Amino acid sequence: MSDLAAFREAVGAPNVLTGSDAAPYLTDWTGAYRGAADAVVRPRTTGEVAATLGAARALGLPVTVQGGNTSVSGGSVPGQPGGIVLSLARLDRIRAVDRAARTATVEAGVVLQTLQEALAVEGLDFPLMFGARGSAMIGGALATNAGGANVLRHGNARDLCLGLEAVLPDGTVMHGLSGLLKDNTGYDLRHLLIGAEGTLGVITAAVLKLVPAPKVRATAFLALSGLDVALEVLNALQDASGGLVEAFEWMPAPTVAAILARDPTLRAPLPTAAETGILVELASTRADDAATDADGAVRLEAMLLGAVENLMARDAVLDGTVAASGQQREGLWAVRDAVLETLVAEGPFVSFDASLPLSCVPDFVARATPLAEEAGLRPLPVGHLGDGNIHFAVVAAPGRSWDAGRVEAFSGAVFDLLAEYGGSYSAEHGIGRAKAPVLAARKDPAQLDAMRRIKAALDPDGLLNPGVLFGP
Amino acid sequence: MSDLAAFREAVGAPNVLTGSDAAPYLTDWTGAYRGAADAVVRPRTTGEVAATLGAARALGLPVTVQGGNTSVSGGSVPGQPGGIVLSLARLDRIRAVDRAARTATVEAGVVLQTLQEALAVEGLDFPLMFGARGSAMIGGALATNAGGANVLRHGNARDLCLGLEAVLPDGTVMHGLSGLLKDNTGYDLRHLLIGAEGTLGVITAAVLKLVPAPKVRATAFLALSGLDVALEVLNALQDASGGLVEAFEWMPAPTVAAILARDPTLRAPLPTAAETGILVELASTRADDAATDADGAVRLEAMLLGAVENLMARDAVLDGTVAASGQQREGLWAVRDAVLETLVAEGPFVSFDASLPLSCVPDFVARATPLAEEAGLRPLPVGHLGDGNIHFAVVAAPGRSWDAGRVEAFSGAVFDLLAEYGGSYSAEHGIGRAKAPVLAARKDPAQLDAMRRIKAALDPDGLLNPGVLFGP
Repeated sequence: MSDLAAFREAVGAPNVLTGSDAAPYLTDWTGAYRGAADAVVRPRTTGEVAATLGAARALGLPVTVQGGNTSVSGGSVPGQPGGIVLSLARLDRIRAVDRAARTATVEAGVVLQTLQEALAVEGLDFPLMFGARGSAMIGGALATNAGGANVLRHGNARDLCLGLEAVLPDGTVMHGLSGLLKDNTGYDLRHLLIGAEGTLGVITAAVLKLVPAPKVRATAFLALSGLDVALEVLNALQDASGGLVEAFEWMPAPTVAAILARDPTLRAPLPTAAETGILVELASTRADDAATDADGAVRLEAMLLGAVENLMARDAVLDGTVAASGQQREGLWAVRDAVLETLVAEGPFVSFDASLPLSCVPDFVARATPLAEEAGLRPLPVGHLGDGNIHFAVVAAPGRSWDAGRVEAFSGAVFDLLAEYGGSYSAEHGIGRAKAPVLAARKDPAQLDAMRRIKAALDPDGLLNPGVLFGP
Repeated sequence: MSDLAAFREAVGAPNVLTGSDAAPYLTDWTGAYRGAADAVVRPRTTGEVAATLGAARALGLPVTVQGGNTSVSGGSVPGQPGGIVLSLARLDRIRAVDRAARTATVEAGVVLQTLQEALAVEGLDFPLMFGARGSAMIGGALATNAGGANVLRHGNARDLCLGLEAVLPDGTVMHGLSGLLKDNTGYDLRHLLIGAEGTLGVITAAVLKLVPAPKVRATAFLALSGLDVALEVLNALQDASGGLVEAFEWMPAPTVAAILARDPTLRAPLPTAAETGILVELASTRADDAATDADGAVRLEAMLLGAVENLMARDAVLDGTVAASGQQREGLWAVRDAVLETLVAEGPFVSFDASLPLSCVPDFVARATPLAEEAGLRPLPVGHLGDGNIHFAVVAAPGRSWDAGRVEAFSGAVFDLLAEYGGSYSAEHGIGRAKAPVLAARKDPAQLDAMRRIKAALDPDGLLNPGVLFGP
């Protein structure tokens, strides 16, 4: 046990947790990663974060940075004992919302959904939308460049961040809380810290780009003739709507069937199971898109319906339903949102966070599926298909056991496939500790070398998040 | 004169220029920056760029990287003799256009307008729009994170780049030509190189994000009641159109008057000069926005007209004209595009590349204007107002001489004002050599220190673009 006095001085004794008080911070939510730490330190201000890092540096203690602890890649708990967890949870203030400029200045510990609810009252939104938004915090979302279902329209977390405040490993504060839309004064350290998973600095606050809340949405579930027409369908919907597609989610028949089997309260999206099901949503901030036309149809819905009819005439879409009410819309999304729980309930699973050029998705799926089956695995994939982001999940095939060796071999085959198509093994879930070996083995050597040099230049003692990205 | 044999071997003797052949590469287009070099080396491939950098490193020769040589900040010509200019002009291939995925893979030496013309045939656009697009090259646009008139809608150059290939200072090639929309595998070196102005690596190719060409545009010139309502007007137009505003350009009366006085073939945008003139343009890719309604009006134009009428009823807009033909639209843009020529014709001028929080623009202008007048200067500003980017240009006031000392003192006062409002002295023109002293004096020390560490880590010999960003 190292001397914790310096941390108690930095943040106040009640905010230095040990023993059972520290336990919740030392296991990630999946339960797969458990760590140990001398203490959990919970600063309340940027100054206290700087003081905490200064103390850790003086003591030579590694620091694991934690937000909402919702990492699925083992990025939020310590990999080895003998260090501290730095929790940002108490930096939870929305410092300012500028309605006219459509920006919000928020601290790292603000929970995504808390921010979104505060903004909804103002008719604004922070359009980063993923399952863990009820626990995930802004700092972690930025540190991992989180994605989700609306990236297609609004971009990844980095695209929604205008400025950053951070504490660098040496304890100095980087003042970059600018809301400027254009600012080119040297290296873009904001973009360097975003996605660096806390290995180069601790994000303490950010200026976020907001969007007006949509005035109307139109949601449909479509049965496509195959994955090979998905890009054609997406482009047709984008062209018809002028780029209003906000979500384009792939929900194939086996995955939907597994979801419905587990939770009978959920409704099947279509009467006949869709081999290639797509949940599509359009959203518009135009008042006239929310207006009702002479036939009594909401204009955006009529536009979606018209586009779908054209696609049916071209045999790209076989069947489809447009949600006729908010309740029907929620029913469709409830099926989509039940994916992760279904996987957990199915027993052991692995979900690949694959990213592919859009045109390569059909081939990838066509080749990965038999590979899974040969390995005694059953694919239950879903995907943010509009981004080329396929969560290719597998569980044990019926009657087969979960064999770690076979899963490992299958993983290697999937990574090889992704490399062949110029894809990525890490779309939006981060590298954390889980994928550090994959990164070490597969990253372009020139880039890996540059990453190591940058890490050594900014964090020469290797204090911040050891094990994350670079491995032990 | 150093030994040029290694460069002749790298790129072929005809592509190593000296003497008068080299001269055009050694003066920038403003004429303000003239440099000297042992040779101008013109590689044709990424491999030749790597070989050139390797040779320069072996000889210990500094390398100035040059694209279209359109820098307005002295970034494209050598600051000191005894080195080479590395011209990317021969890396001029459009390697691929993926119509379905809406991406283009292009080499650094492709001229912006050449790309745009090639894409127009496909119904696509690369929406980076600025005056120098007929000469500026993709590599330079990315290296400086160029902006322009359409940033409001489509973002800066970095927002339009999905992947990069670059040669690092040690001559290794960074392979990052990914067109993935989601890819998080360690530090984002793409975003680090973009905006680094060639000091960390030589961009050789990029995957660019394309957009469908608009089906219809609606363009207007508005007389606002003042700058203080500009944000209200912009938000009203965004709300009415669902975010279709593509340009929102401030053209105040004195600037328009100077433009019209110089070129009598140009037409005044409005019969009565607008104190606060705004050139606004909406663009839509929706077919129904291009359709004609029952009254014979194009829908997008009718929408713009309706929004302007609402704003007139609120006294935010005093007067306005909506272009009724492509010719009228071109007439309005011709006035906007004549700004730089007018400034050049007025004699010596300085144009501040100011960036401000949108809400601070009126105060900044109200305070900078009398400061200019006290310094014997006449402001002729224009601005990408929708981005908070004000090119606050000044010429000598009538009857006053251009006094470098007074201009210098005024510059300092402008930079102080910008700092007070949380603005930036470098929105989109880059730091180059011209603003290196400003950056050294005004950059957040923590960020400047981090920048220096990164530079030393990736370019320990200080080979690339010495003098740029960091000064001599």
